[in-house]
Amino acid sequence: MQIAAPYLLFLGDAADQLAAKTADGIARWRPQNVVGQLRLPGCRADLGLPDVTLEQAQSAGARTLVVGVANRGGVIPAGWLDTLSRAIELGFDLAAGLHQRLADQPRLAAVAAQLGRRLFDVRQPDRGFEVGTGLLRPGKRCLTIGTDCSVGKMFTALAIEKDLKARGLKADFRATGQTGILIAGSGVSVDAVVADFISGATEWLAPANQDDHWDIIEGQGSLAHPSYAGVSLGLLHGAQAQALVLCTEPGRPHMRGLPGRPLPPLGECLTLNETCARLTCPAARVIGIAANTAGMDAMQARRWLDDAADLLGLPAVDPLRGGVGPLVDRMLQ
Amino acid sequence: MQIAAPYLLFLGDAADQLAAKTADGIARWRPQNVVGQLRLPGCRADLGLPDVTLEQAQSAGARTLVVGVANRGGVIPAGWLDTLSRAIELGFDLAAGLHQRLADQPRLAAVAAQLGRRLFDVRQPDRGFEVGTGLLRPGKRCLTIGTDCSVGKMFTALAIEKDLKARGLKADFRATGQTGILIAGSGVSVDAVVADFISGATEWLAPANQDDHWDIIEGQGSLAHPSYAGVSLGLLHGAQAQALVLCTEPGRPHMRGLPGRPLPPLGECLTLNETCARLTCPAARVIGIAANTAGMDAMQARRWLDDAADLLGLPAVDPLRGGVGPLVDRMLQ
Repeated sequence: MQIAAPYLLFLGDAADQLAAKTADGIARWRPQNVVGQLRLPGCRADLGLPDVTLEQAQSAGARTLVVGVANRGGVIPAGWLDTLSRAIELGFDLAAGLHQRLADQPRLAAVAAQLGRRLFDVRQPDRGFEVGTGLLRPGKRCLTIGTDCSVGKMFTALAIEKDLKARGLKADFRATGQTGILIAGSGVSVDAVVADFISGATEWLAPANQDDHWDIIEGQGSLAHPSYAGVSLGLLHGAQAQALVLCTEPGRPHMRGLPGRPLPPLGECLTLNETCARLTCPAARVIGIAANTAGMDAMQARRWLDDAADLLGLPAVDPLRGGVGPLVDRMLQ
Repeated sequence: MQIAAPYLLFLGDAADQLAAKTADGIARWRPQNVVGQLRLPGCRADLGLPDVTLEQAQSAGARTLVVGVANRGGVIPAGWLDTLSRAIELGFDLAAGLHQRLADQPRLAAVAAQLGRRLFDVRQPDRGFEVGTGLLRPGKRCLTIGTDCSVGKMFTALAIEKDLKARGLKADFRATGQTGILIAGSGVSVDAVVADFISGATEWLAPANQDDHWDIIEGQGSLAHPSYAGVSLGLLHGAQAQALVLCTEPGRPHMRGLPGRPLPPLGECLTLNETCARLTCPAARVIGIAANTAGMDAMQARRWLDDAADLLGLPAVDPLRGGVGPLVDRMLQ
């Protein structure tokens, strides 16, 4: 799976700005891959990109129309089909990370088959995997882990990749979820692989590499999340990451989707992850904390980060406020 | 999925006794569900059951022909198709746990569809699952965990179920692998579910129950196995078992399939499993050790079990030599 850039970002009839967060992530992290946005009547999201027609995007070189919007249920509404079908006819591939698959829409599948265009449903793996081996492989790897789901693991990984590249170092972001895959143009939705192959899929995603090359692997879920910890553990074992970055959102009242269940203490979460990671990477250690402090004012955030740094003896940053420089400094020590 | 008993056990042209180990497990643990064995020319396995024809088995009340043999690659050889097809025509359902699916054999699928018979491919889940919640549910549960794959987790779970029932207590074996499912007639092959749903599938498999009812859940893999630990962790969280039984095979030179990788120390494996299990079941504890000491003589085995019991302060048994009574005593304390 390698989604061809540049992209035209399709926002459909997004109900609000948040509904277009996949497109927003692509525009933020891969602006060079985006020629514009395409919105249908009633769309309430705006990424501040040029509004272009299919034909204009095509003239600008766009090769893939990316569905960058999610709606309730992750379905493909009938109202999108004319636009999506026309895009295929004009020569675009399509890519989406919705629950409902592009390939399961008979009209889209027929046109794509006839014209030889590709339909990328990034939520489903498009290949099989071997079981993991745990064998030590060359190359450097960093994995973002979390106290919970949706605490900034993808954002942090992308920020670290960007910082490493800005320093002139070799680095690749490795995507494990649908938004990450659409940003990177490739990857594996690890929570959708057959359970036996979680670690094997991760070994495939971040294979042996040069000794001075960093793969920055997007984490999923949390060892502390009763719904998804199996995915997180397979990913941790397969990643074989020397550097782990612990992501969290201070002040979150409970684990995502599980009212009444508190988040784990940072220190416990750190220790459990290091213990488990060392099964396949004896050198693994948490090298810092990345916190989403959006719910705090600047002073509260500063205090929280200082306290966490003191408590754990590690750099603690909010990637959105101050960047990830201190994490990368520690990674490279 | 509920496979109808009694069964006729199909051994095909098994190359040796070991190839028929699935059938052997069924005959050992559910003899009341078995009317006989059916062997093709060249079969080198013999379970010591009556050799019967399809027609004789039918007269004896058999409702399902169970493929109890595995061959290299898990395929359905062309030489079996006449017999399997004829069984469907006579009114049998078919069940198998091979990689190749009965339902993917056009000839079998056509006859089964025409006559309304069922084809059970127990390696693939036949339904979807919700994600796990980790919410505490009533009922008592025991999960067999392991230092490695193939150390006797299914055998131990079945032995515990049998012991509980012999004491007049309410207990159900809950199968998580293909042989276990064919023995129990139902279950979920948890390593074949989509990764996101490992714990949810386990919650479904061993649901809320009466306070004095025990579900004895078959474990899979090991938290210490780099290939499969994700499955083991999701199963541990979903099982929400108050009682864990740690299974092992003393003297095994390396983790299954991974030459050079030693088995974890028993104590470390115990601690890690208890730590992780308490996320969804704060009362979880390892209540004993079940060792497969087949590679030792009686005196060596006795010494190993005594040493393990002293080291961990827990009962240690070989289910095949002395039964699981001491484990059940401890479970019920």
